[in-house]
Amino acid sequence: MISRRGLMAAAPLAAVSGPTMAQQPAPALRGTGDLGVIIERANGSVLIVETTGRSILKRVTGLGDLSHASISFSRDERFAYLFGRDGGLTKIDILEGRIAARIVQGGNSIGGAISDDGRLIAVSNYEPGGVKVFDAETLALVADVPAVSAAAPKSKTVGIVDVPGRAFVYTLYDAGEIWKLELPEGAEPQLTKLTGIGKLPYDANVTSDGRHYFAGLFGEDGVVHVDLWQEPLRAKRVLANYGRGQEPLPVYKMPHFEGWGATQNKLFLPAVGRDELLVIDLATLQEIGRVKTHGQPVFAVARPDGRHIWVNYAHPKNNVVEVVDSETLAVVRRLEPGPAVLHLEFTPRGHEAWVSVRDTDTVIVYNTRTFAEKARLAAQKPSGIFFTARAHVIGK
Amino acid sequence: MISRRGLMAAAPLAAVSGPTMAQQPAPALRGTGDLGVIIERANGSVLIVETTGRSILKRVTGLGDLSHASISFSRDERFAYLFGRDGGLTKIDILEGRIAARIVQGGNSIGGAISDDGRLIAVSNYEPGGVKVFDAETLALVADVPAVSAAAPKSKTVGIVDVPGRAFVYTLYDAGEIWKLELPEGAEPQLTKLTGIGKLPYDANVTSDGRHYFAGLFGEDGVVHVDLWQEPLRAKRVLANYGRGQEPLPVYKMPHFEGWGATQNKLFLPAVGRDELLVIDLATLQEIGRVKTHGQPVFAVARPDGRHIWVNYAHPKNNVVEVVDSETLAVVRRLEPGPAVLHLEFTPRGHEAWVSVRDTDTVIVYNTRTFAEKARLAAQKPSGIFFTARAHVIGK
Repeated sequence: MISRRGLMAAAPLAAVSGPTMAQQPAPALRGTGDLGVIIERANGSVLIVETTGRSILKRVTGLGDLSHASISFSRDERFAYLFGRDGGLTKIDILEGRIAARIVQGGNSIGGAISDDGRLIAVSNYEPGGVKVFDAETLALVADVPAVSAAAPKSKTVGIVDVPGRAFVYTLYDAGEIWKLELPEGAEPQLTKLTGIGKLPYDANVTSDGRHYFAGLFGEDGVVHVDLWQEPLRAKRVLANYGRGQEPLPVYKMPHFEGWGATQNKLFLPAVGRDELLVIDLATLQEIGRVKTHGQPVFAVARPDGRHIWVNYAHPKNNVVEVVDSETLAVVRRLEPGPAVLHLEFTPRGHEAWVSVRDTDTVIVYNTRTFAEKARLAAQKPSGIFFTARAHVIGK
Repeated sequence: MISRRGLMAAAPLAAVSGPTMAQQPAPALRGTGDLGVIIERANGSVLIVETTGRSILKRVTGLGDLSHASISFSRDERFAYLFGRDGGLTKIDILEGRIAARIVQGGNSIGGAISDDGRLIAVSNYEPGGVKVFDAETLALVADVPAVSAAAPKSKTVGIVDVPGRAFVYTLYDAGEIWKLELPEGAEPQLTKLTGIGKLPYDANVTSDGRHYFAGLFGEDGVVHVDLWQEPLRAKRVLANYGRGQEPLPVYKMPHFEGWGATQNKLFLPAVGRDELLVIDLATLQEIGRVKTHGQPVFAVARPDGRHIWVNYAHPKNNVVEVVDSETLAVVRRLEPGPAVLHLEFTPRGHEAWVSVRDTDTVIVYNTRTFAEKARLAAQKPSGIFFTARAHVIGK
């Protein structure tokens, strides 16, 4: 079922350095805790930024189709692993601002994750389906795990996350299953399968303690929950009110589960097809409130201390960001960064929020106390923003 | 009350590089997310280590009295700010393995913190008391805040932590007060004082959401709690059962509040003078259980996912580490690293624990899944271990 190979099986491409923004000397010695990467979705490029002086350090190009892209960071915060829509897996050296290695590992990919020890990169694929695991150093293939099940001959895999113990959890869209893949050092891989979890789970995510894994269903109402601290693992249906919406939405319009905002004890979940956030108590897994919002929420991002949740919205209301108080559930601020706010990221201890505004080719930096604008950076159709502190967070 | 000065007032010393462990070339370009600092308490030196290959990179000497020492990291994870017992504040460049700046800012100091934006270093002093705030870049004095109150002409300050909004919270031992000091950019400092909180608060700490500040009392039973999310701030007495012990202990034997272990919803608190951990529900602030332990706990450290709590003990039972399951409250493992286990630190996502064993001059690295020993490093009387991921955590 799982093949382990010492050599790379997917087609490797030679490492190619993208052109730099300007002629610069060899990179200076510097810390990497204040670095970040901003996706430029239309160009197949990324910007490398630093959040101390709020400046752009480099542009790296030649990264393929980034219309859907996410990033995991190496545990030393030097390398960014970029998962592109076209199955490209690129290892970017963010200190030197160049591509360190790049392969096209599948035909159509939706995300990836890095193991807690930093040694393994797992990628979930739409096409050909299944999950591939690579050596983080070399991008050599370590394991190929097809998503073959009695319920479906092959499945797209979605919602892949890392959890403690050199393990990954992900969801099989076509088969309706959740799998946990463990790759212990010096021992055989182990695969635990939860079958019949529900119809067409289209996305999933885990809380930052690596405990609560939730999958959203496209084929029926409700959400699937797995408590990864319990043995044996069991999938339970929770949030029966988490409907697919009043009117059927195409799957690409369903809210991403990376879009939830988690505080110490609550989850803020974009409702499907409604201008609302659902508020979930993590202790009981019950809905404890709703927040009426400006539009259909896309990302509800918790400030690192959990006191505020910043929310952006779907087209055509995507020029606004609202700030929700996680205790009172009131909207306490409304910002208008501009047309097509696609993503936002907080600095690690939450003193700033960086907001990408696609249609003005801008990233705006806000002071999260005063809501004053602190800086603007020019970016080409910016989408996802990822800071290196994610390297230290479970499930990121 | 608060003097702000542009120039350094405390006696500055010229920056002095410590000798390196071996003749090495100029430091190579590298990430800093996997670096750490280990205190060598007897020698006034520290080791700079990296946790990917588990090796020692450099020794930095000339750091003064480190019999009580703690560290905060710059937000780029390049610099370590070392707070020594003798009032020394040293800025160590951990990439280059040298002292970048050093001042002796007080006569007797107990700890410090760095603001959420990384610009300010605050140090709490026993002698002359009060708090001083320094520019993180230059170590120039920015604010001097004496601990003068109606209840005591001057106070030792303890339990200083950073909280969001360029703010610090700390406790006045002699006066029995808790102060919040805010230093907003481009505006006057603000000081909020909670008076009459209890007799002789000897230590304090905050949860990693920056919300719950707890101070332990030496002069009476109970613990003081401040919910920093509520306005106006109020100090409330909680945990009436948190006694000073069956027999009076000297203050230096009282458990440090940095010694608590926090999960998403629970606090594991070393009991005073008893072989127990108290388990506190963070939602209700009530005691919900006790764990019988091998000895008087010193540090109860939560693995980053919160599933396990690793505990070390006071002399003469300080050769043992126990591992407690945070759900069942059972001791699930007992390790014997050796005589005088002084501290332990987890790698950021918890795959390893590094344990300092003073009397064998060793730091032992454990796999936290299998509890197998992965490496041993030679260190001279090691005590505190601090990894750079702390840079990104509120209150660290």
